[in-house]
Amino acid sequence: MSDDLFAAVVAHTAVRGQTDDAAVVAAILRVESALAEAQGQVGDLDNSAVTAVCEACEAASEVDLAELARGIALGGNPVIPLVNELKSLAGSHADAVHRGATSQDVLDTALMLMSRDSIGTITADLGRAVTSVGELSTGDHSVTGRTLMQSAIPLPLSTKVERWRHGLADASNRLSDVAAVLPVQLGGPVGDGSTLGEHYEDVRAGLANQLGLADAPSWHTMRLPIADLASGLATASGVVGKIALDVVLMAQTEVAEVREVSSDRGGSSSMPHKSNPVAAISARASARRAPHLAAHLFAQMEQEHERAAGAWHAEWSVVVDLLRATGSAAWWLAESLTSLEIDPEAMERHR
Amino acid sequence: MSDDLFAAVVAHTAVRGQTDDAAVVAAILRVESALAEAQGQVGDLDNSAVTAVCEACEAASEVDLAELARGIALGGNPVIPLVNELKSLAGSHADAVHRGATSQDVLDTALMLMSRDSIGTITADLGRAVTSVGELSTGDHSVTGRTLMQSAIPLPLSTKVERWRHGLADASNRLSDVAAVLPVQLGGPVGDGSTLGEHYEDVRAGLANQLGLADAPSWHTMRLPIADLASGLATASGVVGKIALDVVLMAQTEVAEVREVSSDRGGSSSMPHKSNPVAAISARASARRAPHLAAHLFAQMEQEHERAAGAWHAEWSVVVDLLRATGSAAWWLAESLTSLEIDPEAMERHR
Amino acid sequence: MSDDLFAAVVAHTAVRGQTDDAAVVAAILRVESALAEAQGQVGDLDNSAVTAVCEACEAASEVDLAELARGIALGGNPVIPLVNELKSLAGSHADAVHRGATSQDVLDTALMLMSRDSIGTITADLGRAVTSVGELSTGDHSVTGRTLMQSAIPLPLSTKVERWRHGLADASNRLSDVAAVLPVQLGGPVGDGSTLGEHYEDVRAGLANQLGLADAPSWHTMRLPIADLASGLATASGVVGKIALDVVLMAQTEVAEVREVSSDRGGSSSMPHKSNPVAAISARASARRAPHLAAHLFAQMEQEHERAAGAWHAEWSVVVDLLRATGSAAWWLAESLTSLEIDPEAMERHR
Amino acid sequence: MSDDLFAAVVAHTAVRGQTDDAAVVAAILRVESALAEAQGQVGDLDNSAVTAVCEACEAASEVDLAELARGIALGGNPVIPLVNELKSLAGSHADAVHRGATSQDVLDTALMLMSRDSIGTITADLGRAVTSVGELSTGDHSVTGRTLMQSAIPLPLSTKVERWRHGLADASNRLSDVAAVLPVQLGGPVGDGSTLGEHYEDVRAGLANQLGLADAPSWHTMRLPIADLASGLATASGVVGKIALDVVLMAQTEVAEVREVSSDRGGSSSMPHKSNPVAAISARASARRAPHLAAHLFAQMEQEHERAAGAWHAEWSVVVDLLRATGSAAWWLAESLTSLEIDPEAMERHR
Repeated sequence: MSDDLFAAVVAHTAVRGQTDDAAVVAAILRVESALAEAQGQVGDLDNSAVTAVCEACEAASEVDLAELARGIALGGNPVIPLVNELKSLAGSHADAVHRGATSQDVLDTALMLMSRDSIGTITADLGRAVTSVGELSTGDHSVTGRTLMQSAIPLPLSTKVERWRHGLADASNRLSDVAAVLPVQLGGPVGDGSTLGEHYEDVRAGLANQLGLADAPSWHTMRLPIADLASGLATASGVVGKIALDVVLMAQTEVAEVREVSSDRGGSSSMPHKSNPVAAISARASARRAPHLAAHLFAQMEQEHERAAGAWHAEWSVVVDLLRATGSAAWWLAESLTSLEIDPEAMERHR
Repeated sequence: MSDDLFAAVVAHTAVRGQTDDAAVVAAILRVESALAEAQGQVGDLDNSAVTAVCEACEAASEVDLAELARGIALGGNPVIPLVNELKSLAGSHADAVHRGATSQDVLDTALMLMSRDSIGTITADLGRAVTSVGELSTGDHSVTGRTLMQSAIPLPLSTKVERWRHGLADASNRLSDVAAVLPVQLGGPVGDGSTLGEHYEDVRAGLANQLGLADAPSWHTMRLPIADLASGLATASGVVGKIALDVVLMAQTEVAEVREVSSDRGGSSSMPHKSNPVAAISARASARRAPHLAAHLFAQMEQEHERAAGAWHAEWSVVVDLLRATGSAAWWLAESLTSLEIDPEAMERHR
Repeated sequence: MSDDLFAAVVAHTAVRGQTDDAAVVAAILRVESALAEAQGQVGDLDNSAVTAVCEACEAASEVDLAELARGIALGGNPVIPLVNELKSLAGSHADAVHRGATSQDVLDTALMLMSRDSIGTITADLGRAVTSVGELSTGDHSVTGRTLMQSAIPLPLSTKVERWRHGLADASNRLSDVAAVLPVQLGGPVGDGSTLGEHYEDVRAGLANQLGLADAPSWHTMRLPIADLASGLATASGVVGKIALDVVLMAQTEVAEVREVSSDRGGSSSMPHKSNPVAAISARASARRAPHLAAHLFAQMEQEHERAAGAWHAEWSVVVDLLRATGSAAWWLAESLTSLEIDPEAMERHR
Repeated sequence: MSDDLFAAVVAHTAVRGQTDDAAVVAAILRVESALAEAQGQVGDLDNSAVTAVCEACEAASEVDLAELARGIALGGNPVIPLVNELKSLAGSHADAVHRGATSQDVLDTALMLMSRDSIGTITADLGRAVTSVGELSTGDHSVTGRTLMQSAIPLPLSTKVERWRHGLADASNRLSDVAAVLPVQLGGPVGDGSTLGEHYEDVRAGLANQLGLADAPSWHTMRLPIADLASGLATASGVVGKIALDVVLMAQTEVAEVREVSSDRGGSSSMPHKSNPVAAISARASARRAPHLAAHLFAQMEQEHERAAGAWHAEWSVVVDLLRATGSAAWWLAESLTSLEIDPEAMERHR
């Protein structure tokens, strides 16, 4: 089934490709193979076993997604049926697959990988927006300052847009800080590492190293990394939303201080003459998803004992949606700012 | 792109098929053809024009979704490119397509159709849960009443589950009431019907009649029907969540008063001996999405003038997600209750 | 401690007085005395006992609130220390106090009383807003219709404000419908009525009758009435927010189609010449609280067994906040609309 | 009006006294006097003017709160009437009061002061909780690990509670990091500092220095500091909620591995024999408020131009509520953990 149509507006970002079913499977398989490699490094697995696991992961990348989805509904998470598939593919090395780990270890770590990569996309688009702000022809124009939507006193246009730039850069930095500390999760069924043997901490560190994630003690039901993602993404969406709102307000017919100039965007089904700031509107629509998705993730922090009976499962698609919403907000805002044409005369009139 | 894997847990419902891209296109085309038919009935279009529009809608059902998604990103909503396609297909009758209507008319009405149909699925699954509760073998057993999670005094098990049944039936009734008054939206670019001519109100009534929706004045930026959906769906999810939580708590190892008996569900990747109440857990996970999705929709009610610059666009996929979350919650709860085995002896021990 | 300063903006409503500490105590005592009266009517209590309970409730209305707050912190809810006080005041009739009831019965019912009364205030202010809309001098003026904040085609001003009126009336009706079915809660410790004896259902009906609430089976952990409040209040706030936004947008300096004319509101600390639409802004600020408070209440529906260990307690002040936010939104909007002056010439210019 | 009764459960924290009306007035006056002092340091005000302003601030601390609340409703924020009062008290030095500043400068900075101080309280209570965890008599006991609420395999009790301690410490560190960078807001009506003269940046730095806050460019409508507060507080509440839930679950009658031992807490109005984990329950109830309050604050980031018409006003009481909710959660959790008695034999039975 596809959900591409509404996504064309509110999930318009390369993050989609980094978080769809294929990406989930790839990330899970990446974790399983890295785990085997880390276990090989400390001597918990011999070379042939590591090779067998990695080859199984390679082979499993062509898994039938519809079949996998059926298995997920039965077991309650995506890792169980994939591990079964891997064990089958690994033949005599089946025991080396997923050794000492639990489903949550693999899925949590896979989500961290997907989040880390998605944040790379988001900060790139935020960076594009920053660059576009820098390229706006603000000259030494002034614009009326508006408080409570009433004209107050003028301020330099360069000051107004510098605030946008500053906000975008700050939000992007916060996201990069979050991405830099996203950790692996590895701890086995109850998170204490006992099933992973005496080299548990070394294996965990090796896994982190393989994947370029931070090493950290088990956070299986202490969801600070998820809270960090929620915080950083909602903050970035909030900054985008503020700027997109300013653009939309300045583009109002009666204000007309800016407009999006695009050869192909912005038509109307009933009024072909109209030109709508489609990119800013789409940025706003995308950004508005974030507060509620973040609230959902904060609310799921209340997780029972060593694995939550529902709150964990309730995180997965919301982490994805929040990455996509923020990614879409950033992408559209960069588009909007890149296409923005400023009318200094209109600004002069409103001072 | 597909997002079926996580959906296998938290969007496990036939509602998915009633709200995916194909369903969106089908609903939009259904509205466009019904509009032409309603305009034909009042004489605004002649028979050949109506036929041409309906045939164009029929032909357009095979539209290339990827191409359509590209058009959506440019125009800002799914109706613009579809209408262009229809006009092209209708040839000399292009003027009869989408006559006097605006994109929002068509998409809002299409979402009402999809919501009405989805609620049918949800209430059917709630009904299945009601039936399952009725079939639980409560006998004349007692169960300890638990307040603040402390054993208090016993109550009849039949009374406990009767509360579940009552809650499910009430929630289902509220949803049916909402579905019964979901209205068409028809008003043209600024919602006053002026572009729809002198027969505007008759056309609107005819459209409602064709589609089995309620007739109502324009609500393009007065989003009470969306608020009604949010209310009814979040309420139903809340009821499901309460019952699923009770099941999960009663299934705890130390309580063990109930368990889900299923030949295929509930395995563990690391502990094959465990039996997890996967259906109740999945119901809970699904239901937990609802409050935040509902909040999002309530927050989008603040819409500007005659069409919102972002808040409208921000509704689409969240209405869909809320329908799916509630549908998934209802489906899983029905599964859980159907498979529930009660242990009266355990109940006796805890009294 | 007082929190009146910020409340002057975002909780500016008579609902505050209907939901503050004094109102909570009064409502609890009203429920306790009505319960005794209902038990007297069916013969569970004799006249002297009923009189003693009612006199104790009368006497307890002067309770020391600070002392009471300390007792609440120890027991976990406001009813426990009040009942202790009542038993002490009732002397030899101590057994007649709170007979067969549990804390949640009394507090839930008290919250329903407070909600019912608060909704009376809210719908009165919504009604005042409806009247003000009706009195706006719309003449036969036109105003440009604005879609995506771009001027589209004109519509009659009367049509635009009629939508506001319609939305307000619909929202008010929904709230009145909710208020009409707010039920008593009575069921004893585990909600089955067993501690209330053979006349349980008659006592419950009598209590409902005394208090002017609906009669209903126990809903102690099946929180549909709370969900109904959340739905109705968030919907009403959403309608207010939409209209307040339109007013704020039309009052923009560059649009200036309306302004709030008030001899005393709207000054600025730094710019004395400015006139701000303070009432519409405050309506908007108040209304914006609602979606998140409603989400909180929906999220608390997941309540354990026969009394929730936290989710119930988490409802109390949020129900109050949501009543106040909606009340404040309605009050301010009525103020705004009553003071609204329309500039038809500005509207003409923008067509 | 007082709202102390429900607050006794869900706002049970010294943060209340740091955020009530008296605290708001004190913080505003602190900012006004520090501003004068900073302007004195750079020579914008002479000594007598600075003294006059500081004395006026001293005198105004006895302002009539009810009168002030009336002024707030007229002007739309708390600073306008207080500044009027200060100007009147400063006599011939009236011009030196609030010089070049705008209401939002003062209120935003005052909220930062209140937040900084409140976080001090919160982290102290989190620290108390950390200490209590450290003092739990975990010995070398094991406890069954529970996944999906099913008994899985045992883990050392010390490991389980070490996770709690780790989470609390991490959350506390995040909050301290937020507090350390809470900035002053100073920029005048449109935030560019033009009304503050040539020494604007020095005055801003001086103000920051006086108040012990960070210096930063205007963030009047780029609300990253509010987002940081929302993030840090919701994260801390989430951690508290997780631990409180574990306590409540372990205290269940059928599990009974821990109980809160308190001479005065935890009675029941209808069942005097019951002992409820009131502190953990209250911690949970308090913590549950946070996600939705945080969502509200993220949603208010979409602020118009140089001062928001509603979104700014909608922040004030929610920042306060979020500080209180988190403070209450931390306080109650510390109480719970301090009073926690562990039953190793029960733990042994469930392995």
